[in-house]
Amino acid sequence: MTDLPTRITIHEEGPREGFQIEPGPISTADKVRFCEALAETGLHDVQCVSFVDARRVPGMADAVEVAQAIRQKPDVHYSAIALNLRGYERAITTPLHITGHMQMSTSNTFSIRNTNKDNAETLIEQRRQLEFFRTHGIPVESAIVMTCFGCNFEGAIAPETVRDCVGSLLALAEEFDIKLDRVRLADTVGWGSPAGIQRVVGMVRDKWPDLKLALHLHDTRGTGIANVLMGLQMGIDSFDSSCAGLGGCPFAGHAGAAGNICTEDLVFMCEEMGIETGINLDALIDCARMAENIVGHPLPGKIMHGGSLSKYRQAGAHA
Amino acid sequence: MTDLPTRITIHEEGPREGFQIEPGPISTADKVRFCEALAETGLHDVQCVSFVDARRVPGMADAVEVAQAIRQKPDVHYSAIALNLRGYERAITTPLHITGHMQMSTSNTFSIRNTNKDNAETLIEQRRQLEFFRTHGIPVESAIVMTCFGCNFEGAIAPETVRDCVGSLLALAEEFDIKLDRVRLADTVGWGSPAGIQRVVGMVRDKWPDLKLALHLHDTRGTGIANVLMGLQMGIDSFDSSCAGLGGCPFAGHAGAAGNICTEDLVFMCEEMGIETGINLDALIDCARMAENIVGHPLPGKIMHGGSLSKYRQAGAHA
Repeated sequence: MTDLPTRITIHEEGPREGFQIEPGPISTADKVRFCEALAETGLHDVQCVSFVDARRVPGMADAVEVAQAIRQKPDVHYSAIALNLRGYERAITTPLHITGHMQMSTSNTFSIRNTNKDNAETLIEQRRQLEFFRTHGIPVESAIVMTCFGCNFEGAIAPETVRDCVGSLLALAEEFDIKLDRVRLADTVGWGSPAGIQRVVGMVRDKWPDLKLALHLHDTRGTGIANVLMGLQMGIDSFDSSCAGLGGCPFAGHAGAAGNICTEDLVFMCEEMGIETGINLDALIDCARMAENIVGHPLPGKIMHGGSLSKYRQAGAHA
Repeated sequence: MTDLPTRITIHEEGPREGFQIEPGPISTADKVRFCEALAETGLHDVQCVSFVDARRVPGMADAVEVAQAIRQKPDVHYSAIALNLRGYERAITTPLHITGHMQMSTSNTFSIRNTNKDNAETLIEQRRQLEFFRTHGIPVESAIVMTCFGCNFEGAIAPETVRDCVGSLLALAEEFDIKLDRVRLADTVGWGSPAGIQRVVGMVRDKWPDLKLALHLHDTRGTGIANVLMGLQMGIDSFDSSCAGLGGCPFAGHAGAAGNICTEDLVFMCEEMGIETGINLDALIDCARMAENIVGHPLPGKIMHGGSLSKYRQAGAHA
């Protein structure tokens, strides 16, 4: 395990993932309260909402209200996502930390089904967005490649295809004089296994040894945290995750859907391995329980139910 | 990942774990049906019941009936556990494959709370059991060390303590001319992390390089499958697991309890890594869904909800 990082950063996506998919309704006040509690745990990036069409995603109808109501702490990024220019136009009217993202899917079919644009059209749309970011002084921090480990429409994805997508995004960034901080490799539909992580990360790393990578993993088939371990072993030091495993779970009637890997389970594993997260695990577990309370049904996170080891360690110390 | 095994064996404990802890009642016919279905998937060892005090474990009151009703396939071990001589006396009257087990906990306090015997008394009881096994011609196949990665009463457990327990069990086996096939290291209360697996397995391996080891892991804090990955990377080729993650889950009111790692999620990960399990994943997923149906509430397994990749791979092949 020689390549293990000493410290990782975590992008918390639970509020956005959860409020987007939960049948709800969840009150604006609860959404705000949850985002504020997450920011007290040591997390530095909390993705609060997405600016999307409320007819398609009713849970995000109050995105602007949530964004305006959050009492922001210094040193925490309260972020958001938008999928198109219309979304970005709404986003920049709020006090949230809005950054531009570039994105591309390895799978042309997935792109068409997901956004009604094939990969060539996606690149044209990206150019329009990059012009918009430049005009409005919105920094572009990362690019994400979706369906890196497999696609429900196109099946297995060759690591070379992922590498070529990364190449396209890097070239486009260069065209706009953007130096990307990081490229995020996403297991959008939960095909990832440790072997897949090793192959894909290895392929991208071989081509761009100095490019910082992040993993965005879904726990659709139970290997999420093992995929994290393989990522850590390959030196990956940035992960997207969701408090309580928010974002779709079999217990809420979202058949087949599964949330991101669970933030507090990730924090537990890293801390047990001596990898710093900067996060107060017990405070984060309280947030996960708050989330369960807010959505009104069990969420898939494990340590929120099993409990942290801190009280037992203390007991042990006095045994 | 150079030490990865090419093939693993899985001891399925779902029926015993599940029927023991589920509030039920679960009919004898359902228990039998589930065990029979599991044996059709390619599993070679299905732990069907435990012979324990029905006043303490009402779900096992029909253990003898279940054992007698199962239509056994050749080449499958339909096994059971017993915790004391009384249990073994009942067990050997049934057609199940009864083997003797040796066991010891790293934690004296845990032993006392769990069995009302400290470690010295446990060794005395083990001797009585070993005499019984010899008298009745019951083979002794494995020894298990419990609470190898931490204890809720004694806190952190030093790897040296695990090593010494393994040493005590090996010495006792030798005293009875028993050649143990394997020693199972159990994360009884879910303290394990990949770092813990590495330390403990490494410590035991250093002392007895040729001793075959197995891991018995609970997914109490969400690291179960990552702990498996670390075990695989250290060459471990035998795991205990439960179909559907049976054995306690937060959704059934067993606060803090969590089942073993989930068999079908384990099979998925291994097969994706090129490690053979000999198990038909889709058939096993059907068993997991049967289990959910029988217990009447959601179970924690993931791929049973997310679905296997086989249909998508076929789709991809024709895309």
